[in-house]
Amino acid sequence: MHPWIAQRTQYVDSSGIRKVFDLAAKLANPINLSIGQPDFAVPDAVKQAAIQAINDDQNGYSLTQGIPALRERLQADVDKQYGHDNRRVLVTSGTSGALVLALMAMVDPDDEVICFDPYFVMYPALTGMVGGKVVKVDTYPDFHVDLAKVEAAITPRTKLILFNSPANPTGVLATEDEVRGLAELAAKHNIAIVSDEIYRRFCYSDELVSPASFNDQAIVVDGFSKTYGVTGWRLGFVHGPAEIIDKMTMLQQYTYVCAPHPLQWSMLAALDVDMQPYVDSYRHRRDLLLDGLRSAGYEVSQPDGAFYVFPKAPWGTGSEFVAEAIARELLIIPGNIFSARDTHFRISYAASEETVKRGIDVLTDLAKR
Amino acid sequence: MHPWIAQRTQYVDSSGIRKVFDLAAKLANPINLSIGQPDFAVPDAVKQAAIQAINDDQNGYSLTQGIPALRERLQADVDKQYGHDNRRVLVTSGTSGALVLALMAMVDPDDEVICFDPYFVMYPALTGMVGGKVVKVDTYPDFHVDLAKVEAAITPRTKLILFNSPANPTGVLATEDEVRGLAELAAKHNIAIVSDEIYRRFCYSDELVSPASFNDQAIVVDGFSKTYGVTGWRLGFVHGPAEIIDKMTMLQQYTYVCAPHPLQWSMLAALDVDMQPYVDSYRHRRDLLLDGLRSAGYEVSQPDGAFYVFPKAPWGTGSEFVAEAIARELLIIPGNIFSARDTHFRISYAASEETVKRGIDVLTDLAKR
Ligand SMILES: Cc1ncc(COP(=O)(O)O)c(C=O)c1O
Ligand SMILES: Cc1ncc(COP(=O)(O)O)c(C=O)c1O
Repeated sequence: MHPWIAQRTQYVDSSGIRKVFDLAAKLANPINLSIGQPDFAVPDAVKQAAIQAINDDQNGYSLTQGIPALRERLQADVDKQYGHDNRRVLVTSGTSGALVLALMAMVDPDDEVICFDPYFVMYPALTGMVGGKVVKVDTYPDFHVDLAKVEAAITPRTKLILFNSPANPTGVLATEDEVRGLAELAAKHNIAIVSDEIYRRFCYSDELVSPASFNDQAIVVDGFSKTYGVTGWRLGFVHGPAEIIDKMTMLQQYTYVCAPHPLQWSMLAALDVDMQPYVDSYRHRRDLLLDGLRSAGYEVSQPDGAFYVFPKAPWGTGSEFVAEAIARELLIIPGNIFSARDTHFRISYAASEETVKRGIDVLTDLAKR
Repeated sequence: MHPWIAQRTQYVDSSGIRKVFDLAAKLANPINLSIGQPDFAVPDAVKQAAIQAINDDQNGYSLTQGIPALRERLQADVDKQYGHDNRRVLVTSGTSGALVLALMAMVDPDDEVICFDPYFVMYPALTGMVGGKVVKVDTYPDFHVDLAKVEAAITPRTKLILFNSPANPTGVLATEDEVRGLAELAAKHNIAIVSDEIYRRFCYSDELVSPASFNDQAIVVDGFSKTYGVTGWRLGFVHGPAEIIDKMTMLQQYTYVCAPHPLQWSMLAALDVDMQPYVDSYRHRRDLLLDGLRSAGYEVSQPDGAFYVFPKAPWGTGSEFVAEAIARELLIIPGNIFSARDTHFRISYAASEETVKRGIDVLTDLAKR
């Protein structure tokens, strides 16, 4: 290793997922169900608003907090929804940007951060990067939160709980009871709860109930990336107690300065676009995939949100099963990328119906092995 | 303070500069010579390329390293210029993004980072945020590097030197000898040198000679923000030894994912735009301002780059002088924002000729006090 490399880089080893993509790169025409972003084009009104802002010379730095028009609009929505006096909004460079700032603002070296396993890959990486210790709470087999397990994991060093619903990689939507329980537990122990709600618009049964509905100190990270298909635009936002958001704002000022300015204008326009038809189309594909998997005998926890399903491998480890799937040109992700266990795999249905159907055929065949 | 706030937030206190802007906010029509970004509009070809990319659906995540077309173009330029086998390019979210990643990739807790005082405000903040210790090397009164002072500051814990030429806030351009000396010193002690060359296109006498010309391990952070007037687009790049760039790439993947995708396409177009007329216009304003300052008796080190001048306050501290200037509607920045000393002030001439002239009038008057 190069002598200048810092210790914290050990937390960002991406060799696991690279191995998968290296395998995949050899495929001419894979059935790609591995993608973590929407497959629809950005709605035209959203594109036009970005173009207008570029032409109108909204190209310099914006205020670190975000352009006032967007921030005020988001603040009004948040105030209406939660009615917390002290809740403030900050526009960030993607949901990831909000996560980075939240962890930097709150996690001191050796502080403990509770994540639910399976988890979004960034959570343990970011926690490690800021010097924190990840404490994983297992949620197999149904991927719902067991409050007793969470309470058992809390120590005097626990600083925050990283929660994500609807979840990547499982697609599971937490119940209202579950969320309330977790939010109240955090309040009782005076622990921060950071709720990653990037998939909140992709709910197929109930709406997402946020921990902020039960805990006025909850920090909510949210984004535009998935909702409007603008993952490459690097736009998100976060809301939480003013003192925390204020520190996050200063951290942003000294790190990434501001979210991309002209694109912020387009998010203001995006808030008025009806995305329901897109959500309905994802629900339809979810149903298709879930029916296919269940008919083929896969064990799957009900995925009521996001655009992922996380079935148990019918034989072998998750990695062994995925290697075989890739050998048959089906690109999916082994569960050990998101988990201490290697028993499941992630399928994304952010793909055409045709692709989803081809994927089901291969999976049906593989289950029989 | 809120009990959840992490220690590292102490390094991002922006109350000093806020005080200035609070004063300024009371002015109806200030003579604003405080701005750290170009005052020209983005060239039309650059805007059009961004718009085209948005319309062409280049809106999803890009590769973390940057879109291949841009990265290959930058890599070819870098290879041609330096001819280092092992030098790699990474596209980042602004020059700041590159700085954050460089410090995260290399600075362990308690490592020492050498900065030249006066410094760009981000340097000590970022160093502190990653747990490093800032070692300031004073460059008053001419703002050139004294190699003996640098060598005296080096200890077994020195990890890197943060160097910036043309410099913010002084506008000083380092000489070739100075750069060579510093680059060789870093090599001799096996210390990383990070060269922030964001203002490289704004040179009014000689071209910038990079430390990478003398040290194949130098890490160069560079950007598009200032060159093309796109500070709000959050685009920059960095090149350096492959092992370091590789770690920075993984860190980017787990933090900010990628630079704004459609805007990356426009940077490819930008590389073919002739910016010389813009640079000539800045040179003209630099001359105007410098003549004015010298006629009024100000002590100024020759500013051959960027768009700043950093004169000594003719009376009082830098802050006292600036308070008086602001009372007369002239907005400038006190030197203590960028320095352990409070003796100078920064003027930006990224403003209309008319504004620069009005500024000179006030400064001429103030010098007589
Ligand atoms: C749970 C979760 N949070 C955050 C992100 C990052 O989103 P963004 O592109 O807004 O940074 C993702 C992206 O896959 C995600 O799945
Ligand atoms: C010396 C220096 N480096 C880096 C930056 C940040 O540039 P960017 O907007 O590309 O992040 C600035 C901006 O003022 C600067 O003056």
